Order: sequence, then C-alpha cells, then structure tokens
Amino acid sequence: MAIGEFKIINTEGEARRGEFQTRMGSFQTPAFMPVGTQGTVKGILARDLEEIGAEIILSNTYHLHLRPGENVIKDLGGIHEFMNWKGPILTDSGGYQVFSLSKLRKITEEGVTFRSHLDGAKVLFSPENVVRIQETLGVDIMMVIDECLPPNATQEEVKKSWQITLNWAERSLAAKNRADVLPFGIVQGGMFEEERERAINDLIKLPFAGYAIGGLSVGEDKETMRKITAFSAPKLPKNKPRYLMGVGLPIDIVESVALGVDMFDCVIPTRSARFGRLFTMDGYINIRNKEYRTDSNPIDADCDCYSCRNHSRAYVSHLIHAKEMVGATLASLHNLRFYQRLVKMIRSKIEANEFSLFAEECRKKWNEN
Amino acid sequence: MAIGEFKIINTEGEARRGEFQTRMGSFQTPAFMPVGTQGTVKGILARDLEEIGAEIILSNTYHLHLRPGENVIKDLGGIHEFMNWKGPILTDSGGYQVFSLSKLRKITEEGVTFRSHLDGAKVLFSPENVVRIQETLGVDIMMVIDECLPPNATQEEVKKSWQITLNWAERSLAAKNRADVLPFGIVQGGMFEEERERAINDLIKLPFAGYAIGGLSVGEDKETMRKITAFSAPKLPKNKPRYLMGVGLPIDIVESVALGVDMFDCVIPTRSARFGRLFTMDGYINIRNKEYRTDSNPIDADCDCYSCRNHSRAYVSHLIHAKEMVGATLASLHNLRFYQRLVKMIRSKIEANEFSLFAEECRKKWNEN
Repeated sequence: MAIGEFKIINTEGEARRGEFQTRMGSFQTPAFMPVGTQGTVKGILARDLEEIGAEIILSNTYHLHLRPGENVIKDLGGIHEFMNWKGPILTDSGGYQVFSLSKLRKITEEGVTFRSHLDGAKVLFSPENVVRIQETLGVDIMMVIDECLPPNATQEEVKKSWQITLNWAERSLAAKNRADVLPFGIVQGGMFEEERERAINDLIKLPFAGYAIGGLSVGEDKETMRKITAFSAPKLPKNKPRYLMGVGLPIDIVESVALGVDMFDCVIPTRSARFGRLFTMDGYINIRNKEYRTDSNPIDADCDCYSCRNHSRAYVSHLIHAKEMVGATLASLHNLRFYQRLVKMIRSKIEANEFSLFAEECRKKWNEN
Repeated sequence: MAIGEFKIINTEGEARRGEFQTRMGSFQTPAFMPVGTQGTVKGILARDLEEIGAEIILSNTYHLHLRPGENVIKDLGGIHEFMNWKGPILTDSGGYQVFSLSKLRKITEEGVTFRSHLDGAKVLFSPENVVRIQETLGVDIMMVIDECLPPNATQEEVKKSWQITLNWAERSLAAKNRADVLPFGIVQGGMFEEERERAINDLIKLPFAGYAIGGLSVGEDKETMRKITAFSAPKLPKNKPRYLMGVGLPIDIVESVALGVDMFDCVIPTRSARFGRLFTMDGYINIRNKEYRTDSNPIDADCDCYSCRNHSRAYVSHLIHAKEMVGATLASLHNLRFYQRLVKMIRSKIEANEFSLFAEECRKKWNEN
C-alpha cells in the first residue's frame, strides 16, 4: 500500500473495517490510539505499549513544542526515535490545548497568540507554524490547527469561527513540505447540523488524507454527541479514514463505529485507571471498592494483559489505595489492553458481518452499568 | 544448603563473599535489597525487578500491617504471591516507622503503642505481635522490633533503651512459631562504642540467623557512621550474615563491605531517581541539568538496564522535567540496576582478591563528586 492509502476490507451498515498506510507502517481500523501527550503514555513503558497491542499512538504538538521543543526532538532523530516507538504517531495540533491550558489567547488573521502554561512565554501558533512543527517532529499524521468553541457557542459564533478554521485548513495544506507527513482536516460546526454540513462540504473539497470530527466530547450531552456524529460521519469521504477526536468510553467507541467512525483517541483508559475504574466486557469495576480488597481473582479473567496474568484485584486495589505508582501502571496496562481488545473484537465482528449483533450486546451490558 | 545456612565463599580482609539460604531460595552476598515498603518497589513492576537482577527485596511490617493487613495477605497466599515476587523477602519490623511516622507513641513493658498514620487507630506493636505479623505475612527473614533513638541520644538514654530492645529481642525469639521464617537481631548502642560493644555481646548470645547494625544512617555524620560500622561489624559472628540497615550511597556500600558487612537496603536508588540523580561508575549525574536535554547518549553507556538499552538521556530528562511517571520509572530502573551491578562487581572482586584495589578506585572516583 502507498503512504496515505486507506483500504476498506469490509463494511457492515455504516461500520467500516479498514487499514491505513503511513510511513511507519499501517494500522488496522477501527483503531484506538493511546494518548501520549508529552511523548509518553502515562505510566507505560514503550515495550508495554507494544505488548498492549497498540498500532498507532497520539501525541500533542502544543506540549512537545513548549517542551522539549521540536528541534530538540528532530536533532535526536525524530519523535519515533525520541520515544522509542516504532509504529505510526498522530499529533493533535494543539488547538484544543491553546484554548484550554494557555492564557491570554488572541486570534488574529495570522493565527493564535498565547502564553505558555509552563513559563508564560508568548507563542504564535499559525497554520504554517503548526505544520512546520509537526513536520519537524516527523510524525506520520498531523492535525491542522482549528478554533475550538465551547459547547454552548451560538450558531453565529460557530459560523464565524468556521471561516477562520477553514482558512487555516487551506493554509495548512499550502504550507506542507513533506509528502510522508499526512494531513488530517477537522470538521467543526458546533452542535448545529446546518453548520456541520457547511463545514463538511467546505472541508472535503480540500485534499486531506483523512477527516476528523472535532468539537465533540467537550461537555455536550451524549445524545447530542451521537446525533452530530451520526449526521457527520457518513457525509465524509468513504475512501478516507474518519477520526472522532477525544472519544470516549467503550460504549462510545462501539456506537461511533456503528455510525461510520474509524479512529479514536481518549485519555479515559489511563485517567480512569489512575482513579481505579477498570474496564471489562461486563462493564467497569471500581477497584477501590471494599469487596476487591480481598479478591484473589485477576481484574478480568478473560484478559491477557500483564496485570491480569500476574496480579490479583486485591493487589491492584492495595496499590491504588496506597497511591503507589505501580497501581496506576497496572490499572493503565489493563485498561489500555481492554481498549485494544475491544477494537480488535469490533474489527473481527465487522469482518464476519456480526458487528450490529455485537453492538446490541454491548448496549445491553454497558448501559446497565 | 539448609534454610538459614550462610556459606562464605571467600574473604579479603574484612570483606566477605557469601551465600545465604532461605525458604524461597538463596541470595548472594554482598547483597543490596531494593525497598518495597508497601509491597511494591516504587515505580517498578515485579517482572522488572527480576530483570534488574535483584535476588532479595525488602518490605515493611508497619506499613503492611496497617494496609492491607497481614491476614488479607495470608488469605491471598502470602506476601510472595501477593506481590508476585518469587525470591526471598526480608521485612523490617517497623520499629523505625513507629518512631518516625506515627503519633502518640508510648513504650510500655508490653511493647509500643501508637496511632496509625493512616487513620489514627490505636495499635500495639509488641515483640510477640511483630513476630506473629511477619510469620503471617510469610516472609523469609524477619527483623525483631527495636527502639530507635535519635543520633544525639545521651549514653544514659542509649544504655537504658538497650535493656528494652534486648528484652524485646529475647521475647521475639521465644514467640517464634515458624522455623522457615528466619529472625535477625538488631544491634543498637547509639554513637558510643562502649554501648555498641555491650549490645553486641548481649545480642550474639541469642541464636539469631543474622545480625543487623541498626541506629545508623539516622542523621549522624559519615565519619561516625563509618567508625561505628568498623567497630561493630567484625565483632558480629563470622558465620552469620551482617546487615547494615538503611545504608546507603554507592560509596557507603563499598566502604561497609570493606568493614565486613554483607547486606544492605536503602531508598536512595529509587528516591534519587525520582529527583533525577542517576548513578554511574564515574559518579552520579543530575539528569535535570541543561546539558542533558539534548544528549542522545544513554544514561550510562556501560549499563544494560532497560532505560539505557532503549532511551536517551534527553528523553529521561524530558520526562523528569515533565513530571511523567515513566521518567521516574526509567530513572529507578537504571539506579536499581546500577546497585545490582555494583554488588555483583564487588562479589567478583572479593572472589578474585581484588576488592581492596576496587574499593580504592571507587574512593578516588566517587569522593571527587
């Protein structure tokens, strides 16, 4: 397969089973990308990321630009060498972080100026800058910068903002220098179908290697998230991967695949793990609960992760209560493996045309929780 | 070898190269025990402890009694099963923790009553209790409870305290129920040679499987620590292992081996790691320093640890600066491996009668730092 090629292996309804090729190899879709914001998935060694079965991971342009800086990483051989992760890497542009973490943001025609959350230094993120940073990092898939709006933005605000984001998307493509760093565009449009449609129509005219649905999972209710995903995903090009940014819980992955989404990322498996919420195919358990303190069973008897092969619920419970790092690591290893097992299962179900049945089972089991 | 047997393989001056047998296998001496206070070595998976080359680890009676409780651990199959560590485990009695962490301590004839640092619950640690807890945990080597004094205790205080500690030592032996849980006695005596001599003479009359030098590394100066170690170690039985508690820096290990010590434990390799101090045979480096932020070399080109095989100084520096868990883990893996490589080197040097030469080289390299 050529770099940037997306091969669809099977479809079932809107659900798609595919494979996407990057410079650092291909990954199977639907895919879940563990989040390695600062060049590391929290608590997980590179070798364990491989064991978990992750095929592509996500990192963050905003964070890596501020520390250690893209030129440092380039001089060290690029982001794959830096992290010692040999598979594909996608970087989020950092637009979301500019709006959520930094201070004194100011949007101008040129881009967005802000102050670093680390040292207060003034930084400009322009579409050209953000492309340059990601090409310098040497990532496989780069997200263009977009303006992120709160979920309660008015239609007028959303409409106006999209003109900026669209202009930035065009400039991002014009600024590209590397053919092997694949650009993904981001659909915005808030919670308005009319604006989502406008954004999609504008964006799919631009030759992106993939298309993301942005601006969801930002505080809106589940029903709205599903409605906008259902409305948007099928309108995106069939021959390109579709990425739903920042989503979500296991049930969200299943539901969104059913709506035609191919790629996901979310901090939930690692963040929940640190607080003791552990996923299984029967729902989640809170390992901090009293009943697990003496439980000699593994977290999930069906799981093949390092934690489940080697440790009891009681041990993980003890370590989480004792605030020991290894507790967070064991819990994260399990949750990340659960997500990989889930997308692997989804892939095999779509191949066998049994996904809609599987999705129905998941709804029954996980909505009761 | 029988359980509790100590075989001396070679000696060079006071330095000894030996092997000690426990129920869960033997370990080679001089030995360094990584510290797993709460049933986990901070940041290190059980699998990685093996890879580091640790042959025996230390845990803590005080902490495990308060959480999760020795009966919970027993019901889960004992401490080895609980931690999934199949080698020998030594538990400190918790005397030190009673005096450093808990509130409202009160020493009576029966033992020491204190309030838990976790929930304020009233707890009694008597010699009998502490033996029972460690036998219930199922450890391989148990330390008797002792009274820990501050380094500025007067000779009168030290003398009086020793009568309590000696009485507790006798009662500990009388309370034993398991032949396969080996008891170690602890020499106290403050910074006074006269009191140390008294304590040693009293203690070696009791049939312990090994003898520890306690009450050092508690805030006294280096010279005093060396002087008391030099005075005490050679007076302990030649046919039993000698354990210097809570020591120390790499140079302290080398110097103390030269004085006749066989076993060590210390939080320095893991605690220092979390702050970025990394050990090499040429001294230590502080990975937070600016020069390492762009350094593509491994922490130590001579090291075979996971970190040095897979990552650059620049990456570890980045993660420590970014306060990422993996930074602490990579640094701890390296430092713990360094300590294991050091004791392995010491063992081979004693075998070859080249230890005094090696110690001289270490002094030159490490005292300059």
